[in-house]
Amino acid sequence: MSSLSEELVAFRRDLHRHPEPAWREFYTTARIVDELETRPLDELYVGSEVLTDERLALPDEATLDEWLEQARADGAREDLLEKVAGGNTGALAVLKRGEGPTIGLRVDIDALPILESESDGHHPAANGFRSEHEGFMHACGHDGHATLGLGVLDAVIDSDFQGTLKVFFQPSEEQIAGGKPMAESGHLDDVDYLLAAHLGLDHPTGQIVAGIDGFLAVHHFHADFTGYPSHAGAKPEEGDNAVLAMATAIQNLYSISRHSDGATRVNAGLVGGGTATNIIPEESFIEGEVRGETTELMEYMREKAERVMRSAAEMHGCEVDVKTEGMAPSARSDDEIRNVVADVAGTTEGVTNVLPTDSLGGSEDATFLMQRVQEHGGKAAYIGVGTNHPGGHHTSTFDVDEESLGIGIDVLSGAILKLAQERP
Amino acid sequence: MSSLSEELVAFRRDLHRHPEPAWREFYTTARIVDELETRPLDELYVGSEVLTDERLALPDEATLDEWLEQARADGAREDLLEKVAGGNTGALAVLKRGEGPTIGLRVDIDALPILESESDGHHPAANGFRSEHEGFMHACGHDGHATLGLGVLDAVIDSDFQGTLKVFFQPSEEQIAGGKPMAESGHLDDVDYLLAAHLGLDHPTGQIVAGIDGFLAVHHFHADFTGYPSHAGAKPEEGDNAVLAMATAIQNLYSISRHSDGATRVNAGLVGGGTATNIIPEESFIEGEVRGETTELMEYMREKAERVMRSAAEMHGCEVDVKTEGMAPSARSDDEIRNVVADVAGTTEGVTNVLPTDSLGGSEDATFLMQRVQEHGGKAAYIGVGTNHPGGHHTSTFDVDEESLGIGIDVLSGAILKLAQERP
Amino acid sequence: MSSLSEELVAFRRDLHRHPEPAWREFYTTARIVDELETRPLDELYVGSEVLTDERLALPDEATLDEWLEQARADGAREDLLEKVAGGNTGALAVLKRGEGPTIGLRVDIDALPILESESDGHHPAANGFRSEHEGFMHACGHDGHATLGLGVLDAVIDSDFQGTLKVFFQPSEEQIAGGKPMAESGHLDDVDYLLAAHLGLDHPTGQIVAGIDGFLAVHHFHADFTGYPSHAGAKPEEGDNAVLAMATAIQNLYSISRHSDGATRVNAGLVGGGTATNIIPEESFIEGEVRGETTELMEYMREKAERVMRSAAEMHGCEVDVKTEGMAPSARSDDEIRNVVADVAGTTEGVTNVLPTDSLGGSEDATFLMQRVQEHGGKAAYIGVGTNHPGGHHTSTFDVDEESLGIGIDVLSGAILKLAQERP
Amino acid sequence: MSSLSEELVAFRRDLHRHPEPAWREFYTTARIVDELETRPLDELYVGSEVLTDERLALPDEATLDEWLEQARADGAREDLLEKVAGGNTGALAVLKRGEGPTIGLRVDIDALPILESESDGHHPAANGFRSEHEGFMHACGHDGHATLGLGVLDAVIDSDFQGTLKVFFQPSEEQIAGGKPMAESGHLDDVDYLLAAHLGLDHPTGQIVAGIDGFLAVHHFHADFTGYPSHAGAKPEEGDNAVLAMATAIQNLYSISRHSDGATRVNAGLVGGGTATNIIPEESFIEGEVRGETTELMEYMREKAERVMRSAAEMHGCEVDVKTEGMAPSARSDDEIRNVVADVAGTTEGVTNVLPTDSLGGSEDATFLMQRVQEHGGKAAYIGVGTNHPGGHHTSTFDVDEESLGIGIDVLSGAILKLAQERP
Repeated sequence: MSSLSEELVAFRRDLHRHPEPAWREFYTTARIVDELETRPLDELYVGSEVLTDERLALPDEATLDEWLEQARADGAREDLLEKVAGGNTGALAVLKRGEGPTIGLRVDIDALPILESESDGHHPAANGFRSEHEGFMHACGHDGHATLGLGVLDAVIDSDFQGTLKVFFQPSEEQIAGGKPMAESGHLDDVDYLLAAHLGLDHPTGQIVAGIDGFLAVHHFHADFTGYPSHAGAKPEEGDNAVLAMATAIQNLYSISRHSDGATRVNAGLVGGGTATNIIPEESFIEGEVRGETTELMEYMREKAERVMRSAAEMHGCEVDVKTEGMAPSARSDDEIRNVVADVAGTTEGVTNVLPTDSLGGSEDATFLMQRVQEHGGKAAYIGVGTNHPGGHHTSTFDVDEESLGIGIDVLSGAILKLAQERP
Repeated sequence: MSSLSEELVAFRRDLHRHPEPAWREFYTTARIVDELETRPLDELYVGSEVLTDERLALPDEATLDEWLEQARADGAREDLLEKVAGGNTGALAVLKRGEGPTIGLRVDIDALPILESESDGHHPAANGFRSEHEGFMHACGHDGHATLGLGVLDAVIDSDFQGTLKVFFQPSEEQIAGGKPMAESGHLDDVDYLLAAHLGLDHPTGQIVAGIDGFLAVHHFHADFTGYPSHAGAKPEEGDNAVLAMATAIQNLYSISRHSDGATRVNAGLVGGGTATNIIPEESFIEGEVRGETTELMEYMREKAERVMRSAAEMHGCEVDVKTEGMAPSARSDDEIRNVVADVAGTTEGVTNVLPTDSLGGSEDATFLMQRVQEHGGKAAYIGVGTNHPGGHHTSTFDVDEESLGIGIDVLSGAILKLAQERP
Repeated sequence: MSSLSEELVAFRRDLHRHPEPAWREFYTTARIVDELETRPLDELYVGSEVLTDERLALPDEATLDEWLEQARADGAREDLLEKVAGGNTGALAVLKRGEGPTIGLRVDIDALPILESESDGHHPAANGFRSEHEGFMHACGHDGHATLGLGVLDAVIDSDFQGTLKVFFQPSEEQIAGGKPMAESGHLDDVDYLLAAHLGLDHPTGQIVAGIDGFLAVHHFHADFTGYPSHAGAKPEEGDNAVLAMATAIQNLYSISRHSDGATRVNAGLVGGGTATNIIPEESFIEGEVRGETTELMEYMREKAERVMRSAAEMHGCEVDVKTEGMAPSARSDDEIRNVVADVAGTTEGVTNVLPTDSLGGSEDATFLMQRVQEHGGKAAYIGVGTNHPGGHHTSTFDVDEESLGIGIDVLSGAILKLAQERP
Repeated sequence: MSSLSEELVAFRRDLHRHPEPAWREFYTTARIVDELETRPLDELYVGSEVLTDERLALPDEATLDEWLEQARADGAREDLLEKVAGGNTGALAVLKRGEGPTIGLRVDIDALPILESESDGHHPAANGFRSEHEGFMHACGHDGHATLGLGVLDAVIDSDFQGTLKVFFQPSEEQIAGGKPMAESGHLDDVDYLLAAHLGLDHPTGQIVAGIDGFLAVHHFHADFTGYPSHAGAKPEEGDNAVLAMATAIQNLYSISRHSDGATRVNAGLVGGGTATNIIPEESFIEGEVRGETTELMEYMREKAERVMRSAAEMHGCEVDVKTEGMAPSARSDDEIRNVVADVAGTTEGVTNVLPTDSLGGSEDATFLMQRVQEHGGKAAYIGVGTNHPGGHHTSTFDVDEESLGIGIDVLSGAILKLAQERP
C-alpha cells in the first residue's frame, strides 16, 4: 500500500465523517483546497472559477446557509467558506511540467441523503468515522474519489511527468447537476486525455475496468400541475383536477413507445397532489426522469414526455410547468486510453484482474466532461477501480476497502505517466 | 337577545380562542363539562361513556398527547383531562322532568386545520378572541353550536318542560368520524325526537330552515399501495410500480359509472407516492371519498371504488390496503319535527324568514344519529339557523353573528317544548 | 274502438310490413302522403318542404338509392318517390277551420335496424304483417304513431274544431336527427299548442300520461383519430398511435366530473381502430354520446368531451375530427296542456288510469319541436299513450296493442278540441 | 443464370399468380407436390404428415372451403386437394444418398392480404403474372422461396451429394403459426444442419448474408372482453363496460416496464368494441402482440400483458379470454454454418458482396425449426439472399429480381454440399 499514506487515509475518513450533498460541499471543498494549497501547484481554482453559472437543482438560500453554518461549526477555514458560499463548491488543481499533453482526472465529491448504519459490522461505525451529519452519508464512495484525486496528484508530482495535469474535484454528481457547469467552464477545452474514475460498481478490490461504456443519457424533470379547486361534494364540476391530470400523465409517460435504436427508460419517481378528500385537487407534481442509451434516445423520450404532460394538463383544464432538474449525456470510453489503462493495470501490484470494459447501465455526469473533451479532439475514458464493498451503492452499509485506494492511485497515475510519454 | 347571556357569549369566545380538531377536543370538552356541572342535571356522560370504541381516524398517540398537553397549558381541569385523554372527547347532558317524550339535541364541537385571519375586518381578530392555536380555527361555527347546546339546555331548565332532554356534544364531525360511535352508544335508542342544528349554510341571521334534506352519504378512505422498488435505469423490470398502480386507480375511480338513481361523487383528494426520480416507486397512497344521494348510492360507489383499487394494485403486482377513515349515511328530516320548528320559528322574535326545507348538498355525520333514532321509531330533523357569515364555511374569515345564537336558542328550545307538549 | 277504423288498422300493418330507418322512410312517406291526399286538407308539405337542409347522419347516396329502389319495388307511387328521393322524407298536413288557435300534433315514422321475431307468439308474425325488410323492424311503435297522426286528423276533420291543425310526420327520430331540421323549418313558429305522443313506455293499454318530463338532452358524436402507422417490431417509435390516443380518450371521457346541477351521462358506445397486430395503429374512432338532465348539462359534457378527445389526440401526435351525428335538447311539458289532456283522458272510454306526469329518463328529439314552440310563446307537452307491449322497446318482440290506438286518437283529438275551445 | 431454368421461372410466376394466405395454400401445396412427384425422391410428406395438430390461427371452415374451391377452380389436382383440405398445407421432400449428415432446407410458401399494384412499372403486372386472387399477393417473396426449395433440390439431385436432404415447404409463416406444428412434427429431430433462407430484406441482388441474427421472439394474442350491456341513458350503472376495460388494458399494455436485458415490444394493433352509442358496451377485443430480443424477454412481456388484461377486465366487472394466435421464439445462427455459407458465397458467380451477419429486427417462425434442431444437437442458420426489390416487403409493389433466384440456388446448394463433405 505504498501509494496510500496514512495522511490520505485520514483525509478520506475526515470527508467520510462530514458528508455533504449536492452544492453543499462546503466543508469538503474547503478541506480539499486546504490540502491542495500545501502542494506545489501552478494554478488552483475554486467554485465559480471552475463552474459556469448554470447550476441546476441549486437548493434555496436558507438550505445553503444552514449547511454553510454547519461547515463553519465543523471547523472549515473561514476564508474558504467565503469563496464557496452560495453553492460555489468544487475545485481544480493544475500542475504544469514542461512540454507534453494536458491530461485531466475527474473525481466527484458529494454525498447522499442516506442514514449511515450504526452496526458494529459497519467499518466506519466500528472505527469512529461514521457520518456526523445525521441522515447524510458517503454511500457512493466519493470520499474515496476525492482521495484518489489527491493521491494521484501526489504521485504525479513525485514523478518525472512531462506535460500538464488537471485534477477536477466535481460537485453535485448525485444530482447530475455539477457536470454541465464544470464541463462548460473552459477548463476542459485543452485537455488531451481525460480520465474519470469510480470505485466499486460491484467489482472487488484488485479488479480494474479499463474503460467503462453503457452510460444512459438522462434527464431529470420536475413538473408542477396547477388546476382549480372546488368542493368535491357540492361543486365537483367547478374544479380543474390537477391530480387527474397527473394520473393521466403518469399513465401515458410509461406508455411512450420503445425505440428501435436502443434502450430507453422513463420513471415518475416521486409524485403527489391534492389537499383533502373533499377538495377537487388544485395542485400536483411529478418528479421524474427519462433515459436513453444515446443522448438522441434520451431527447426522444424527453420530447415525448413533455408532450404527454402538456396534453394531460390541457385535457383537464390545468397548466403545467416542467423544469429541468438535472441532465447528463451518454458517452463512450476511447480505446486509446482504455488500452493504456489495461496495460498499466496489468503490471500494477495488487491488481488481480483487468476487464477491458463493462457497461455502467446507469447515468453519470462525468459524461458532460468526457463529451466536452471528445468534442475538442481529445480522448476520454471512465475507469472502474474495484473495491470490496459490503453493502451496495446507495445503501446504509456501503463502504470502500481502503486497500483499493492505493491500487487506484497506482493505476491512474501510472496511466497518466504512460499517456504523457506515449501519446497514443 | 334575551336568551343569549353574556356568559354564553364569553363561553363561545373562549371556545373560539381554543379550537381543537377531531378527537382532540380536550380543552373544549373539559370546558363544556365544567359548565354542565354547574347545571341541575340528572345525568352527565363524558367521552367513552357516550362513544363506542369504534373511533375512526383517531390520531396517533403522540399527536393526542401533544394536544392534551396544550389543553393542560390552556388551563383545562386536570380531573377532566384524565377522562378525555386518548381521544375520549364529547359529552352528553341529561335532564329528566317527569312524564313526557325523550327529546335529543345534537351539536358538534370540533374545529378545523385552517389558519385564522388576522385582518381587522375579521371580528374575532378585532375583538381579541382569534384562535390561540395557530393554524387551527373554528371555521364552521362549532363554537357556536356548543353554545347553542348550552343555551337550549338553560332555556329548557328554566321552562315547564315535561319529559327528558338529552343534549349531545359530538366530537369529530369534520372527519365524519364521531357520529357513528356516538350513534351506537345506546344513548340515542330511546330518543323520540332528535334535533340537530347548524349555523349559517349561506342563510343570513333571521332565517330558519325547518328541516334540511339532501345529505350526501359519504365514505372516506385511505388506500396504501405497496409494490417493490428497483433502480429505474438499471433494473426497471424488477420493480412493482406503486405509482403506476395509483395512477391507474385514480383514472378508473373517476370513471365509475354514473347511477340513474341519483347523484354520486368520487374524489382522489390527496395522493402521493415514490421516493426519488431514479427509483421505481415502492409505495403510494390515495386519500379519497365517494358520496351518494342515498346511502345505497354511496355503497355502490364504495364497492366499485374498492374493486378499482384492488384490480389496479393487482395489475401492477402491488398490494393495496384500503381503510375507512370516516363515514356518514344519508338522511331525511321528518315532517313532524319540521312542522313544529316552522310553527315555532314563525312566531319567534328575530326570525324574519322560515324556509320549510333546503338541500345540504354536502355530508354530515349527524345523519348517523338521525338514522339511529329513526330506526328505533323516533323522528329526527336537521335545522338550519341562519347567521351572517362574512367568509364562507371553512375559510379563514368565517365568523358567526352572535345575534343569531339567541335566535337559535329560542327556536330550538321553543320547538323542544312544543314537541314535548304536542307529541305530533 | 269507434275511432279506430279497419282502414287505420290496415294502414298501420302496412307500415309495419315496410319498416324504413332514418332518412329512408320512402315507402312510409309516400304511403302517408297518399292517404293525406284523400283528406280535405288545406295545405300539404312533403320532405324538403318541412325540413331545413341540416339533416344530420344522412346515409350515403348508395344506401339512399338502395332503399329508394326497394320502396319502388314495394309499390310506392313514382311521383312521390321523386319528391322524397335523397332523404327528403316526412310530411305535414294542415287543416284550417276559421278563427282559433294553431295546434300541432307531432308523430314520428322511422323504424329500427332490428330483426323482427318470427315466433308464433309474436302477433305481427302470427297475423301476416311481420317486417318484409329483413333486419329492420318497427320496434318502437312509430307505425302506430303515424296511425295516431292520421286518426287524429280524421277525428278533427269530423268535428266542429275551430282553428288550425298541423299534423307533423317527423322522420329520423331514432337517430335524433330529424327533429332539428323540422323544428327549424318555420312551420312550428306559429303553433300555439304542440302535442307530441308516444305509445307504450312501459305503460299498459288504458293508461295515459298527461305530460311527460325528464328528457335527457343528448349529443351523439363520431370522432376519427388519425395518426401514423409503423412496424411495431422494427420501428415502433415512428408510429403515432391512434389506438393509444383513443384509449386515453375513452378513459378520460368516463372521468369527466359529475355535475352538481343534475344528472349527466357519457358513453363510448362503439369504438375501434388499427389494422394488424404488427402495425402501430394509424386510425381509430369513437362513436359516443353525452347527455344531461338539462341542455346546459349536456353542453357541459359535450365541451369537456371534445377537450378530452382533442388533448388525447395531441398527446399521441394524432389528429382528431369530431362530427355531430345527432342531437336533442331537454324539454318540459307545460301544465296548461297537461291539465287539458288529464281532463279529457279522465272521461275518455277505455282510459283506466291517468298519470299527471312521468320521467322519460331517455332522449327524444320531439324536444326540438317543443322547444321551438315554447321559445315562440306557445305551449307544448309530450303525452304517453299506454299500450300493452309484450317485448320491451327496441327488442325483437315489441308490438303495440291496436286497441290502444283508438284510445290514443280519442284522447289526443279530444284534447285538441278542448284546447281550441278553451285556450287555457 | 445456369441454375435457374425456364421451368423454375414459370413455376415461380404460377405461384405468384395464385397467392394464398396462411393455412389456405391449397393450390400452392398441390402445385409444389405435383412438381416434387416428378423428382426421384425417397420420401414425400404432405400437410398433416409434416404438421402436428396444433395449428394456431386456423381460419373457420367456411373460409377454408372457399379457398379450397378456388384452388379447384384454379386447376389444382383433385387427389391433392383432398389431402390438403381443412388447412393441411405444406410439404416435405426427402432425398437419401448414402452415408452422410442430414441437412434441412426450410422455405415458406404463404402470401399476404395485400392488393397487388396494377402499375406498368410493376413487373408482374407488366408481364402478365399479377395476382389473380384479388386482394392477395406474394408481397414477401415466398413464391421465390418455394422456387429456391425446388431449385436447390434439383441442384443437389444433380450433384454427388452424400447424406440426406430434407426440403421443408412451410405454410403459414406470415401468421407465425406454421413454424411450431412443423417443428414439432418429428421431421426436424434428426437434422444435423438446417438452413432457412429469405430473399431481399433490403439487400440487393448479389449480396448474401451468411447468417442472420436479431430475431425478436413474438407472441400474438387475441383477447375477448365480455361485460354486460345496459342503456347508457336510463341505466348506465347496470352495465359492465367492456370498452372501458379494453381502454384500461390498452393504456397499461403500453406501460409495461422496459427490461434491462434487452429490447421488448408491445402493440394493440387491432381493437374494437361496443354496438351503439346508447348501449354500455358488452363486448370488446384486442388483437395484439408482444416481442422480445430473447424468448425470455418475450415471455416477460407476455406474462405482464396477460396480467394487465385480466386485471383490467376484473376492474370493470368483465371476463377476458386470451387466446394465442401465433408465436415464434428468438434464435441465433450458428457460426459453423455461417462460415460455410460465407465461403461458398465468396466464390459463387453473381455474388458481389458477402455479409457475415445482419439483424432481422423483426420476427420469423423459422426460429421454431432452428431451435428444434439446435436443441437436438444440430446447427442452424438463417441466410439472406439479396434481391433487388422495387417496393418494400409487404407493399403492393414488392417484387423479386428473378436473377437472384439462381444465385440463391447456387449458394444454398453449394453450402449443402460443402456441409455434407466437411461436417464442420
